[in-house]
Amino acid sequence: MSDRKEFRDLATPAAAHDAIDSLDLSPAPERVPLEDARGRVLAERIDAAIDVPGFDRASMDGYAVRARDTFGADEADPAELDLVGAVHAGATPEVTVAPGTCAEISTGAVMPEGADAVVMVERTDEMGADAEVDEPDRIAVRTAVAPGDHVMSAGADIAAGARALGPGTRLTPREIGLLSALGVDDVPVEGKPRVGIVSTGDELVRPGESLDPSRGEIFDVNSTTIAAGVEEAGGEPVLYPHAGDDYDEMERLLRRAADECDLVLSSGSTSASAVDVIYRVIEERGELLLHGVAVKPGKPMLVGRLTRRGTEATADDGDDETDRRTGESAYVGLPGYPVSALTIFRTFVAPAIREAAGQPEPATATVEGRMGVGERYGEGRMRLMPVGLLDLGDDGLPLVYPVDKGSGATTSLVEADGVVAVDADTEYLDRDERVTVQLFSPDVRPPSLLGVGEDDPALNRLLDRLDNPRYLPVGSREGLRRLRDGVPDVAVVAGPTDREVESVDLGGWTREWGLVVPAGNPDDVTGLDALLDRDLRFVNRPTDSGLRRSLDDALDALADERSTSRGELTEAIAGYGLTVRAFESPARKVIAGDADVGLGLRETAERLDCGFVSLGEQSVVVRAAPDRTDRGAVRELADALDDPGAVLDGLAGYSRNSRNEP
Amino acid sequence: MSDRKEFRDLATPAAAHDAIDSLDLSPAPERVPLEDARGRVLAERIDAAIDVPGFDRASMDGYAVRARDTFGADEADPAELDLVGAVHAGATPEVTVAPGTCAEISTGAVMPEGADAVVMVERTDEMGADAEVDEPDRIAVRTAVAPGDHVMSAGADIAAGARALGPGTRLTPREIGLLSALGVDDVPVEGKPRVGIVSTGDELVRPGESLDPSRGEIFDVNSTTIAAGVEEAGGEPVLYPHAGDDYDEMERLLRRAADECDLVLSSGSTSASAVDVIYRVIEERGELLLHGVAVKPGKPMLVGRLTRRGTEATADDGDDETDRRTGESAYVGLPGYPVSALTIFRTFVAPAIREAAGQPEPATATVEGRMGVGERYGEGRMRLMPVGLLDLGDDGLPLVYPVDKGSGATTSLVEADGVVAVDADTEYLDRDERVTVQLFSPDVRPPSLLGVGEDDPALNRLLDRLDNPRYLPVGSREGLRRLRDGVPDVAVVAGPTDREVESVDLGGWTREWGLVVPAGNPDDVTGLDALLDRDLRFVNRPTDSGLRRSLDDALDALADERSTSRGELTEAIAGYGLTVRAFESPARKVIAGDADVGLGLRETAERLDCGFVSLGEQSVVVRAAPDRTDRGAVRELADALDDPGAVLDGLAGYSRNSRNEP
Repeated sequence: MSDRKEFRDLATPAAAHDAIDSLDLSPAPERVPLEDARGRVLAERIDAAIDVPGFDRASMDGYAVRARDTFGADEADPAELDLVGAVHAGATPEVTVAPGTCAEISTGAVMPEGADAVVMVERTDEMGADAEVDEPDRIAVRTAVAPGDHVMSAGADIAAGARALGPGTRLTPREIGLLSALGVDDVPVEGKPRVGIVSTGDELVRPGESLDPSRGEIFDVNSTTIAAGVEEAGGEPVLYPHAGDDYDEMERLLRRAADECDLVLSSGSTSASAVDVIYRVIEERGELLLHGVAVKPGKPMLVGRLTRRGTEATADDGDDETDRRTGESAYVGLPGYPVSALTIFRTFVAPAIREAAGQPEPATATVEGRMGVGERYGEGRMRLMPVGLLDLGDDGLPLVYPVDKGSGATTSLVEADGVVAVDADTEYLDRDERVTVQLFSPDVRPPSLLGVGEDDPALNRLLDRLDNPRYLPVGSREGLRRLRDGVPDVAVVAGPTDREVESVDLGGWTREWGLVVPAGNPDDVTGLDALLDRDLRFVNRPTDSGLRRSLDDALDALADERSTSRGELTEAIAGYGLTVRAFESPARKVIAGDADVGLGLRETAERLDCGFVSLGEQSVVVRAAPDRTDRGAVRELADALDDPGAVLDGLAGYSRNSRNEP
Repeated sequence: MSDRKEFRDLATPAAAHDAIDSLDLSPAPERVPLEDARGRVLAERIDAAIDVPGFDRASMDGYAVRARDTFGADEADPAELDLVGAVHAGATPEVTVAPGTCAEISTGAVMPEGADAVVMVERTDEMGADAEVDEPDRIAVRTAVAPGDHVMSAGADIAAGARALGPGTRLTPREIGLLSALGVDDVPVEGKPRVGIVSTGDELVRPGESLDPSRGEIFDVNSTTIAAGVEEAGGEPVLYPHAGDDYDEMERLLRRAADECDLVLSSGSTSASAVDVIYRVIEERGELLLHGVAVKPGKPMLVGRLTRRGTEATADDGDDETDRRTGESAYVGLPGYPVSALTIFRTFVAPAIREAAGQPEPATATVEGRMGVGERYGEGRMRLMPVGLLDLGDDGLPLVYPVDKGSGATTSLVEADGVVAVDADTEYLDRDERVTVQLFSPDVRPPSLLGVGEDDPALNRLLDRLDNPRYLPVGSREGLRRLRDGVPDVAVVAGPTDREVESVDLGGWTREWGLVVPAGNPDDVTGLDALLDRDLRFVNRPTDSGLRRSLDDALDALADERSTSRGELTEAIAGYGLTVRAFESPARKVIAGDADVGLGLRETAERLDCGFVSLGEQSVVVRAAPDRTDRGAVRELADALDDPGAVLDGLAGYSRNSRNEP
C-alpha cells in the first residue's frame, strides 16, 4: 500500500536525547546593540573598562569641605567657612577648596580639588557677606564630617578591571543597567541558532491562503506553531516556502535549509512520496542517526545530520547567506499531528535550541500537580500524556487531568497545558498521585476556571467577561458526567436532564430552539411534521447536546400523539442520524445547501439570516461543583449571572429564566 | 541653595497606585500578522470561521468502506470488497464507494462519497485480481467497523461558529497553532502602549558616546534600563534624544513625547533647572496628581497627566505620528538613582503598562523566601528593600539577604534580585522570617552560588566556569565576616588573616604581590624603602583587602627592622591613606600618572605593561561554609580547584599552592 519505511527497533527516549545532543547546533557568537540585547546571553565575561563613577562624586546636596576644618563643630559651636564658589553636576569644578573654605556642591557633581567630604545642606546656615570689606559669603557648618563622608569615590561602584558580568549571563533590564553604566553599547552575545522549518504535507495550505476542503486541504498548523516555539527557545525560525506536492522543489528546499541553517525541522507528512524525499536527502547529504522513538505520541521521529554545500561543493543557487556556513546542519523530523509535533519539539528539540543559544531552562518550564482522575496506560513505551491544569488556589497542588481528543485535534493544543511523561513501566496513575507537568511553553497560564457542557452564544459572551477561563463544549450530558467525576468547576446544562449530579445552581437563562430553514422558508416548514411527512434533508446535533435532548422529547410527545414510537418516527427523518458538532453547525449546513432543515436556535437563524420555526424554549443552567463555589472565578460567574441582562442583550429568543426574574 | 520644591505631604503607596490607575495608558487595539503575534494578547474573541477539518477526513491509512459491508467480518470470515480506486491527502476523491466496494485511502484524505468508515490497512489483505475476467483487485477485510470509525468528521476538531479563543488570551505557540488551523493570519491584539523616555540629567551621556569624567559626566543608566523594563511589561519604549543642559530642547522633547506617547517617563535629575522644566510643562499642559510618595527609595516620584497637542492646537513640529493622538498622555517622574528608578518602575509603573497592554502578571513576578539575616528598619515609610536571593536547593525557601550599597550604586542592580516591601509599621525582620520578594523582572534567575571576598584575576576565570554564580568583591576580611554570618556559600581569602571562622578549605593558589610602577621603573624603586625615604606618590588598597594586609605585615617587619612603629612609617608614605577599589585600580592610577607607585599584583603589572617590584607571595584560599559543601555549585568549584592548572595558566606570578601540589 505504501513503501514508507517501518519504524522498527524504536530508540529509547534517552537515546533520542543523546542523538540530538551529538549534533552541533551552536551558531557563532555575535555583537548586538545594547537596545537589542534584552533576553540575549553574554558570550564572554565583561570586565569594567572604566571606573564608575569616573570621579569622586558628591552624593548629597551641600558644601564640599576639607573634613579637618569641621572637626569639633556642632550645633552649639559651628565651624565657619568662606564660600568660594559652586560646583554643579555635569560641570568641571572651577574652584579649589583651600583650608577654611568650602564650595556649594550638587548631588552628582565632581568634588573640587582640596575638598574630601560633603556637609549636607540641612546641617549648614548661610551667614551672608560683609559687602563693605569685600568679604565672601560665609557658611556655618553645624556638624563634623570625616574624610569621605557623602562622597562616592571614583570606582567605588565598580572599578576598571573588575569582573562585571560573567559569560552565560542572561540580560534582563538590570544587567542592561550595569552595561549602560560601563558605557557598553555593543554587547557580545551568543548567536541565535537558525532553525529552518520545511513543511512537507501535500494537503497543507499556509494560513491566509485560500483553502479547498473538497481537495482535503487543511491549514498548516505545525510551521507557525513550531516557529513560535523556536523563537521562544531562543532560536531564529526561518519558514521556507511550502512546496505542496512538488517533490523536486521540496528536495531543493531541504538542501537549501541545510545550507542556510543550524537545524532543519520538518514535520511528518502523511504522504509517502514526501517521506521518501526526506530519506533521499538525508542519505545523499548526511547520516540518519535515529529512526523512530519509543514514545507516544511521536514514534515517527527522525534525527540526522546534513552536510552543508559549503563543504561539499554542490551547485550554487546564489544565496550569499550560505557562503559562510560550512560543516554540518542538524535535522529533526517531527510527527505530523500538531499536539505530537509540539510535544516532541518541547521534549527533545527545544532543550537543544536553548542550549545552543546559551539560554537557561525557564523557571516555569514545569509545574507540579496531582492527578484529578485515575488514568490507565499500558502500551510499553513512554507516553507523553497531554494534560490540562486547574489551580484550585487551595494551597494544594494544581489538579491535572488528561486531555485526549486524539492527536489529530488542534483544539487539544489549547485544551491541554502540557504533558506528563509516563514511564513505559507505569500502568496506572492514581487519582491524587503527584505528577510533573512539562508545560507546552513557559508562559502557558493554566485557566482560572474550567467549565464543561453545552455550547451557547450567551455563554460565549459570559466567558468573555472572565479572565482566562477554559470551556470544553462537550454537551450537556457529558458535561454533567464530568462534573460528577470531580474535575471541572462548572457544567452548563441545556434542556431536560435525567442525570442526578450534586451541584449548586448559579443561574442561567432560557433560549428558543427549533428548526433552522433557508431564508424565506422555501419548503414552508411549520413544525416537526414536515420532517416526518415530507422528503426533507435534516441535520441533527449529537446525543450529548441539550438541543438534541429537547428535540427527542418533542419527538416522544409526537410519537404519543401518533400512537407510535420515537424510533419509528426517527426512521422516517432523512438525516436524523447526521449530527454536527456546534450550535451553529446545522444552520451552516442549511446555508451551504447540504440540508433543508437543521436543529438550532432562533439566535443563530436570525444572525445568519435564515428562516426559523420555533419548537419551544429550553433553560440553560450553570451548575457549579459544591466544593468550588468559593473560588474567585466561580463567584465572578455567579455575580454575572445575577444580572445576565447585558449578556443576553440583543440575542434573539433569549430571556432571563425564572431564577433571574427581579 | 536650590529652589527645588520640597516633598512635603508624601502620598501613601496606595494613593500612588490609585493615581496611576486613574490615568489612561491604553492604546487602540491593532492587527498583527500571525508570525508576529507570539506574546501579544487577543483584543477580541475569535470564533471559528470554518470547520476544522473542513471535510470528513480519514485518520488512518487503509480502505474507505461502507461500514455495513463489514458487519460480521472477522479473521476467520473476512468480508471481500472490490477495490475501486484510491484517495490521497490533498486530492479530490474521484471514486464513489458503492455497496460491496472500497477505496484505498491515506491518512488525511477526504472520505469518498458513499464511504462512512475506514478499515486500518493492518486488518486487510490484498487478494489480487483475476485479470482474465477484467475483475478489479479485491480486498479482504478481517474486521467489522462501525460508521465513523477512523474518520474525523468535518468540524469535529472545532466547528464554524464555535468559540475558539477568548479576549485577553496571551498568544503562546499553542494558541498560534489553533489560529493557524482556523486560517487566521491577521490577529486582532491589544496595542502596545507607547512609552516615551526623556532623560533629564545635565551630566548624563548615552552609552557609546564619549564620556568626560572631569566634567562629572556619567553614562545614562536609567533610559536603557527602563526601556528594557517597558519592553518586558509589554510596552513599546521610545527613547528621546538626550537634551543635556539645553532646557529649551528638554521642554520641547517633553511636549513632543506627550503628543506621541501614551505614557511619558522621566527619571529624576539632580539638576534643579531640569526639575523646573518638568514642573513648567506639567503645569502648562496638564495636571500634577501626586508629588512625592512615602516609600524608600522613591520619595521624589511624580504622577501627572499631560494634554496632547492634538486637542489644544499648539505649534506643530510636523511629526505625522502625533496627528492621530488626542486626549491625554500620562506622566510619571521616576527617581534618579538606578536602583530606585527600577524599583519604583517595577512597583508602580510596570503593572500599569501591563494592564494597558492586556498582559497578565507573569507567574514569576514574585518569589517566597526567608530572611538569611535579621534586618532593622524604622523610618516610618514603606521601604522597598533591595535583596539578593540564594536558593540552597534544600526544599526550604530561598535565603533572602538585604543588599544595601546605597541607591547610587549601579552594581546593586545585579547584586540584588528584587525588593521586599517592608511596611511602614515593621521595625524588624527576624532571621528566618518569611518574606515575598518582588523580582526586578520576571526572568531574574537567582544565582547558583554566592561568593564573597578578595578580588583576583584567577578567581574571575574560575567564576566563568560556573553557571550563574554571584561574587561580591568585598575584600578578604569582610568576606570572612559574612561567611561567619551565614549567608554566602564561600569566601575567598587572600594573605594572612586573624579572623577565626569555621570553614572548609576548597583549595586555592598563590599570587605574587608587590609594587606596580610605570614601565621601565623610572624612579628605580626597589622596595618599600623607596616609599619611605623618597617623595613618591603611593596608592593603596582598602583595609579589607588581602593585598593591604600583606603590605601592612611587610611594614610591621620593616618597622621592627628600623625600631619604629608601623604608624610612624605610614605617616611618611604619601598616599598610604588613598585607597582604591579593585585589584587593578592602583596600577591604573600609576598608568594615568596620578601616582608613582601602586599596590598590586605581578599579573596586573605585566598585563598592563607596567614595571613591578616583587614583595612576596600570598596564598588565595577558597573557603566554604561547612553546611554548604554538598551544594552542586560548591562541589563544581571544589572540583575545579583540585586541578587549577587551566585557571592559572598564563597568569604571571601565579602558582599552585601547597594543597594543589601533585
